Amino acid sequence: MKAGFYQFNPVFGNKKKNITSVANALKGIDVDLLVLPEFFATGYQFTSMEEVGYLAETIPDGETTEALASLSKKYGMYMVAGLAERFDKHYYNSAVLTGPEGFVGLYRKTHLFFEEKLWFTPGNTGFNVFQTGIGPVGIMICFDWLFPESMRTLALQGAQVIAHPANLVLPHCPSAMPIRCLENKVYAITANRTGREQRKEGSCLEFIGKSQIVAPDSTIIAKAPKKWTSLMIADLKIDTALNKSINQYNDLFKDRRPEMYQVLVEQETK
Amino acid sequence: MKAGFYQFNPVFGNKKKNITSVANALKGIDVDLLVLPEFFATGYQFTSMEEVGYLAETIPDGETTEALASLSKKYGMYMVAGLAERFDKHYYNSAVLTGPEGFVGLYRKTHLFFEEKLWFTPGNTGFNVFQTGIGPVGIMICFDWLFPESMRTLALQGAQVIAHPANLVLPHCPSAMPIRCLENKVYAITANRTGREQRKEGSCLEFIGKSQIVAPDSTIIAKAPKKWTSLMIADLKIDTALNKSINQYNDLFKDRRPEMYQVLVEQETK
Repeated sequence: MKAGFYQFNPVFGNKKKNITSVANALKGIDVDLLVLPEFFATGYQFTSMEEVGYLAETIPDGETTEALASLSKKYGMYMVAGLAERFDKHYYNSAVLTGPEGFVGLYRKTHLFFEEKLWFTPGNTGFNVFQTGIGPVGIMICFDWLFPESMRTLALQGAQVIAHPANLVLPHCPSAMPIRCLENKVYAITANRTGREQRKEGSCLEFIGKSQIVAPDSTIIAKAPKKWTSLMIADLKIDTALNKSINQYNDLFKDRRPEMYQVLVEQETK
Repeated sequence: MKAGFYQFNPVFGNKKKNITSVANALKGIDVDLLVLPEFFATGYQFTSMEEVGYLAETIPDGETTEALASLSKKYGMYMVAGLAERFDKHYYNSAVLTGPEGFVGLYRKTHLFFEEKLWFTPGNTGFNVFQTGIGPVGIMICFDWLFPESMRTLALQGAQVIAHPANLVLPHCPSAMPIRCLENKVYAITANRTGREQRKEGSCLEFIGKSQIVAPDSTIIAKAPKKWTSLMIADLKIDTALNKSINQYNDLFKDRRPEMYQVLVEQETK
């Protein structure tokens, strides 16, 4: 299947412009799964609860999810995109999966980063794998990458490709994702954004770009530069992610020893 | 504290020569914790159960552990070293920790690699942290690195430095260890071996050397070349591993969501 990312520089608060940018990028391309950045429609750096309340949307009936579902139907393809969600009295840093059939699924970010904690509630969906016409897709968002439990939980549940919307500002993720893919033998598509946001004095965020597509053997199939808007699509043989064997004696999943890992799920540790 | 590794080329089956090599390396150096390779005294590539039975030893009263304990006492320092263990009717790919007080602790390799499965029983100790005069030390052996659960389990139990005896033949571990250290905010010392072993036709193993000391921020403090015997020691501030905070909002351990990770300890996965 053909899968990739659209890396661009969203303008804060201008959903119409940002969604149009995605719609224009889709014209004339052939893709089965496209991943967009975290908060692709709103921008990243919220500065008040009022702002979050004004820009967040319900899912699946908010304008952004409806626009994505419409584009997915029009082009017969899947998309994973990050957006600010309003649900009940809570706001979540969420991602939606849309496809030819419309809205497919929702993930709410498990591990919130930095000032996201001021505005958003930690996700309550857990890490779920969505069965789609192109195979089983797992979703994690940005900072989730640093917790090896995130991708592991998705891969153990059968995800063959991890869609990873991001707004990275720290440098480590691009060199970590090949290790994440290797340890789980899955594909991963990180869609990061570019540009800077300075929405309050003394807090200029510079995003690192470098979106990438990584194969289960840790090969970087495609990698965007830091600064430029980039649409990159590669041909993924995602069924290779079914094979966790690395030689005639070792299978990375069968070799796991869950009885030795109980500490990982204890609430209190030293 | 001063900690490091001794990377060398053990001669298969010649324990006396290999232990003497270590004893000579220790002369005149100042070190608190030294890590030696996996199977440092016997060599790696066993070719029959008889050979394993002849070379494996009981712990702590076998000659290799006694030699290590004696050196540890003589120099007032800790050592972690890999060796073939005989216990009851089983053989284990084990590592011992010795110190000024003599024998301290034992780890039996959890995840066996390749033909090790022909000769050894998967470890039954689990991942334990040893409280020592220089701080809490965790041990994992070679292939354990590829399973993120290994170092995670040690770090969650308070390990500040991971001693990692290895006999690496595949290329990925040196680039993965900085990510392992970053995700757990611990130090790690990988002690690999050099050289080749061809103990049966058509099976020449070439070890990759590249032993290294890595800091909790992913910095590679010291790295050996592929081919040469190398003794490298660095000054580690291991109490920095107590701090899992990465900014005023995020603490890598407090931010974990164990209730979302239950799949990791289930015996059956998709």
